[in-house]
Amino acid sequence: MRALIFDLDGTLIDTVYAHVFAWQRALAESGLAIDGWKIHRRIGMSGGLFTRAVAREIGKPLSDEDAARIQSRHGALFRELLPERRPLPGAIDLLRHLREEHIPHGIATSGRHPEIDASLTALGVPAGTVVIDRGDVLRAKPEPDLFLKCQEEIGVEIRDCYVVGDAVWDLLAARRAGMLSVGILAGGYGWDELIAAGAFRVYRDPADLHRSLDELGII
Amino acid sequence: MRALIFDLDGTLIDTVYAHVFAWQRALAESGLAIDGWKIHRRIGMSGGLFTRAVAREIGKPLSDEDAARIQSRHGALFRELLPERRPLPGAIDLLRHLREEHIPHGIATSGRHPEIDASLTALGVPAGTVVIDRGDVLRAKPEPDLFLKCQEEIGVEIRDCYVVGDAVWDLLAARRAGMLSVGILAGGYGWDELIAAGAFRVYRDPADLHRSLDELGII
Repeated sequence: MRALIFDLDGTLIDTVYAHVFAWQRALAESGLAIDGWKIHRRIGMSGGLFTRAVAREIGKPLSDEDAARIQSRHGALFRELLPERRPLPGAIDLLRHLREEHIPHGIATSGRHPEIDASLTALGVPAGTVVIDRGDVLRAKPEPDLFLKCQEEIGVEIRDCYVVGDAVWDLLAARRAGMLSVGILAGGYGWDELIAAGAFRVYRDPADLHRSLDELGII
Repeated sequence: MRALIFDLDGTLIDTVYAHVFAWQRALAESGLAIDGWKIHRRIGMSGGLFTRAVAREIGKPLSDEDAARIQSRHGALFRELLPERRPLPGAIDLLRHLREEHIPHGIATSGRHPEIDASLTALGVPAGTVVIDRGDVLRAKPEPDLFLKCQEEIGVEIRDCYVVGDAVWDLLAARRAGMLSVGILAGGYGWDELIAAGAFRVYRDPADLHRSLDELGII
């Protein structure tokens, strides 16, 4: 019995570019302008790691207060810039198919309630679906904790879990969890980057994955 | 005598993610929501090609009026989202170095005056620098016209020109112009994507290129 463990942002819901731009604005407002591509390539890692990476870029440590203020400003800008969450093509149908076919699955995200609630609603994720968020574990991606916690709750063996994610951080965390992984291009990473990080297949979006479930041995 | 022909957005100035998000918002407002990554991978191609690509995504033709309206809304959102243009690391110094060392160079962009003027000002590009914009040629990237026109004005042989760009469209246009090309990661494409499109070197940003000019045979 194979199980699918999904990342959320950039994998099921089209939020990556709004996140990048919200971070870019929030950092610039604090006088900490950082290249957009460096933010993009760090979306999906834990907030603590992200903050340390930002500090390294600007060449001085960020105080906890500054980090918290910038993080809060990012959240406000993100909600302002993207009031509606848009599921990626095929995401709703894929999740419905998994439910109808009783294929075990869950969502494991570095995001937090209540920020992720609008995304879950847009995706039509019903109560009872396993959703692990940042608050459920001590360490976020690329640590394996989110995926391991999700796998425990789904109740399927590690070796039978496929992680589905758009970011290198998902794929690294999957390897560290001992799980196979599948890359999704909708987060804006290139095919090669995802393969190099350990994905054994790469699909464009959830619709493309749905059409290809047999390539994963899931029917 | 080697010459460098630079793309502008994403190569010298940090505007790609603001462009992506402005397009995403402008399209969504018109009921034509498209995945962010598909917009990202089309930034830098000609506006006409971009519009046709959008129409193909949504599965119906866009009227010229709709296309013009969305393009105008994109411009307004872009200026609102990014009132200040931020040169990429090392861009100002690199251009100054090229001027001081009398190394022939120019800028060739799918953008237009007056939209690009703020970027040229932020980069400290003096009057007299060869700048070819969309209005100077019949066809934009990935057609070779912008680079060929720039090369003519610089007055260096085609075989001695290196195109420097962040997008696959720059590198394709360079090949079609018969020029070698160098990729820049700051537009958010991956290393492999740029190499596969024909770049013979890839650098992170203009600062990294500046440190590596000897790898291009430019001293």
